[in-house]
Amino acid sequence: MSNADIFLGEVIGTAILILFGAGVCAAVTLNHSKAKASGWIVIAFGWGFGVLAGAYTAAPLSGGHLNPAVTVGIAVDTGEWGKVPLYILSQLIGALLGAVLAWLAYYAQFRANADPANAQPTLGIFSTAPEIRSPAANLVTETVATVGLVLPILAFGRNAGIGIGQVPGEAAGIYGSGISVLLVSLLVVGIGLSLGGPTGYAINPARDLGPRLAHSVLPIPNKGTSDWGYAWVPVAGPLIGGLLSGVIFNIVF
Amino acid sequence: MSNADIFLGEVIGTAILILFGAGVCAAVTLNHSKAKASGWIVIAFGWGFGVLAGAYTAAPLSGGHLNPAVTVGIAVDTGEWGKVPLYILSQLIGALLGAVLAWLAYYAQFRANADPANAQPTLGIFSTAPEIRSPAANLVTETVATVGLVLPILAFGRNAGIGIGQVPGEAAGIYGSGISVLLVSLLVVGIGLSLGGPTGYAINPARDLGPRLAHSVLPIPNKGTSDWGYAWVPVAGPLIGGLLSGVIFNIVF
Amino acid sequence: MSNADIFLGEVIGTAILILFGAGVCAAVTLNHSKAKASGWIVIAFGWGFGVLAGAYTAAPLSGGHLNPAVTVGIAVDTGEWGKVPLYILSQLIGALLGAVLAWLAYYAQFRANADPANAQPTLGIFSTAPEIRSPAANLVTETVATVGLVLPILAFGRNAGIGIGQVPGEAAGIYGSGISVLLVSLLVVGIGLSLGGPTGYAINPARDLGPRLAHSVLPIPNKGTSDWGYAWVPVAGPLIGGLLSGVIFNIVF
Amino acid sequence: MSNADIFLGEVIGTAILILFGAGVCAAVTLNHSKAKASGWIVIAFGWGFGVLAGAYTAAPLSGGHLNPAVTVGIAVDTGEWGKVPLYILSQLIGALLGAVLAWLAYYAQFRANADPANAQPTLGIFSTAPEIRSPAANLVTETVATVGLVLPILAFGRNAGIGIGQVPGEAAGIYGSGISVLLVSLLVVGIGLSLGGPTGYAINPARDLGPRLAHSVLPIPNKGTSDWGYAWVPVAGPLIGGLLSGVIFNIVF
Repeated sequence: MSNADIFLGEVIGTAILILFGAGVCAAVTLNHSKAKASGWIVIAFGWGFGVLAGAYTAAPLSGGHLNPAVTVGIAVDTGEWGKVPLYILSQLIGALLGAVLAWLAYYAQFRANADPANAQPTLGIFSTAPEIRSPAANLVTETVATVGLVLPILAFGRNAGIGIGQVPGEAAGIYGSGISVLLVSLLVVGIGLSLGGPTGYAINPARDLGPRLAHSVLPIPNKGTSDWGYAWVPVAGPLIGGLLSGVIFNIVF
Repeated sequence: MSNADIFLGEVIGTAILILFGAGVCAAVTLNHSKAKASGWIVIAFGWGFGVLAGAYTAAPLSGGHLNPAVTVGIAVDTGEWGKVPLYILSQLIGALLGAVLAWLAYYAQFRANADPANAQPTLGIFSTAPEIRSPAANLVTETVATVGLVLPILAFGRNAGIGIGQVPGEAAGIYGSGISVLLVSLLVVGIGLSLGGPTGYAINPARDLGPRLAHSVLPIPNKGTSDWGYAWVPVAGPLIGGLLSGVIFNIVF
Repeated sequence: MSNADIFLGEVIGTAILILFGAGVCAAVTLNHSKAKASGWIVIAFGWGFGVLAGAYTAAPLSGGHLNPAVTVGIAVDTGEWGKVPLYILSQLIGALLGAVLAWLAYYAQFRANADPANAQPTLGIFSTAPEIRSPAANLVTETVATVGLVLPILAFGRNAGIGIGQVPGEAAGIYGSGISVLLVSLLVVGIGLSLGGPTGYAINPARDLGPRLAHSVLPIPNKGTSDWGYAWVPVAGPLIGGLLSGVIFNIVF
Repeated sequence: MSNADIFLGEVIGTAILILFGAGVCAAVTLNHSKAKASGWIVIAFGWGFGVLAGAYTAAPLSGGHLNPAVTVGIAVDTGEWGKVPLYILSQLIGALLGAVLAWLAYYAQFRANADPANAQPTLGIFSTAPEIRSPAANLVTETVATVGLVLPILAFGRNAGIGIGQVPGEAAGIYGSGISVLLVSLLVVGIGLSLGGPTGYAINPARDLGPRLAHSVLPIPNKGTSDWGYAWVPVAGPLIGGLLSGVIFNIVF
């Protein structure tokens, strides 16, 4: 894969992921949305099918990581760290772009937030926040949930007939073809359902940091705080989880 | 594909799509339905599995576009515009037919709408309407959501082992075999969950215009307005989105 | 396929289908169930994954029809009617057996129905009933919904790479291998979501008649009527729908 | 497969399964969870996608049984009982480990249970309990539900193109590659939806016993009883169901 392909694949793929993911949080949260208060099952499937949309789109270009924790996990496995900064930078730019697209899609709803009588906090549409603020516990939650994502992704590639690792002419991508991305997208649905309760399952530093940047910049009325004090947890936890997954995978498999 | 195959495939496939799609809106909306008020998750999966039913049925005949925005996106990619009018006309006829079938399936429920004390508005079963009426914002929502549909569909075809573009003996169809339609149907579920909140996700001019025609003609008691003033938005937005998707795809891939 | 294989496959497969299907209706309906009042999405996925369980089990033996409407649709297509009575009889026996198994699984809940203060009607766990009783409209609903099932099933077989019609050494089965049954099970979820509102989507004469027989015989306290006056509709509608699907399929494909 | 591979595969795979499964029960049950009271559909898909995560991870090492009832059903079919104790012991250790991981992920929520005014019973997060306590009926429910799991799993392997039994170089594993685990995970979703109402569908002795051990040991405030009086039912029922499934499979197929 050329650097240009990696850049384009990860930017576009992560933008699509966040368009869907921030979109579903807007759909369930905002007033004047047909999906308002439609529940956790909607959140989890919306994010999961965002992975499906973004990663199948990115896979032929970049392997479709869309997540620094996945990129780090693969790097630990393969020992190839040279392109990790390019991947992560591209994912951050894509996540920022995707959050802007979700804001455009829900522009009228965000504009209606100018009404002070019905103004809603908006950060939860962009980034995660814990139900109980406890940095150590929140960090553990994000780390465990990310191991629940990245270790299976690495292990999925050892199954025949799934298509993981079959990017034409390449072996470095974790995704690639066949049902691989479908399985990962359902895995993400499962993590959301099962492990999203305490912190909202960032499990992806770019997914949290990019949209948080967007939230701090976008002209949303009554938008509330961007809560930068918490921002390190959904970055550190998933990175630790990705590293741990690579280490466990190398030992066991 | 012969013109007759394209016509039959798109008419039957789009009719099945709208039978399911208008059906699920009737199921969730109408009094005397076992699924009344069963929520947004039901709407999104009902439409998505309507794509599964309609597009796998149409694929061997016409490639299973079922959507002028998909047809236009493919035409931008391939440069072949000769059959675009036939595709779009067939999709419109199919959508009209599917809306009539859904009305037949819920005939007793629609008849019960004659009771003035419990009459319900019925347009939402057939066509989309925005939660906040703002033509510019609504147009942007439909455009963004359609790019979220058509760009991934085009990109899916670059993944090995999915079966997109593998209509036997043909290369022009975007669908065709293997898991391709399954993936597109889950993509449509995702778009509904994530991007349907503001406008009800037409993302398909035929899906909105055909049933709106049916609504304006069918003898439904107390049916309310067919809201033709809004009808251009869910036509123009998806067409712009389809064009944009084709252009982006040609530049990036 | 031998007659013994057809018999065993259809009996076991239909029994599993109805164990899941009647089971999910019991789960959502009965007091003292953890899934009580969990909604239409649960009903639709419960029945759909019952098809997945039953039809993949039966497919290697009998092709996994599990439904006289499917059997009739295939017979119209192939012109081979000789084994149709054996299929239908086996499906009826299996459906009866499955209803008994579901009753066993929910035995304590049914026994609790002896309490007259909290007794619930029980027929809806076994068989379908219309929300608005109107034989002509109900018949149309069941016919349209069954065409929405059987016509796609027949057409799915024309897609490459799905595995329908690939029972080893046989061509007569509609199911067989690969993702075929998975697609049909999601199709059944879709029909439930979209077209189940008016009559509860029998779309299968055996699915309604077998459990209705079980309901009339089983010793359930305060079980209420078995409503034999309606029983012909969910038999006739699906059979007409299966015939129509075969005829349309033969004309179009 | 080496004994070490079987041990590692079953420990890690079952740990992932229970991390997801106990996780989703915590998510839906505990105060201060974003998924609180999100319903039965969330429970069923959470457990099902836990199977997807755990079994695709374990499959290349051990075949991915993750369940003594599956191991016993396969042993009846193949006649090879030598490694059954190793499988079951590994599954129990994995289940215990997974419950500890779920407790870590929800640590802050469990700690908040120290508040006596809002303390909640916690056993239901770890292990199953019947809605109506009736050992004979509960045993029948677990037995029937387990036959609904293990008999289809055994039969799935007779379908071409699914990938069951295709562990590279091995024939003993029930899972292995392709879409096999995906199908089993959706089957588990279906069992949860349809047959989980009376007893909470253990259908797996390790799934119930391992987390019950964890519950009895972990320092959870106000955790309530571990209800050891019921513990034999979700062990005996699934084992009987696994044996029965193997016997039926051997007779019919």
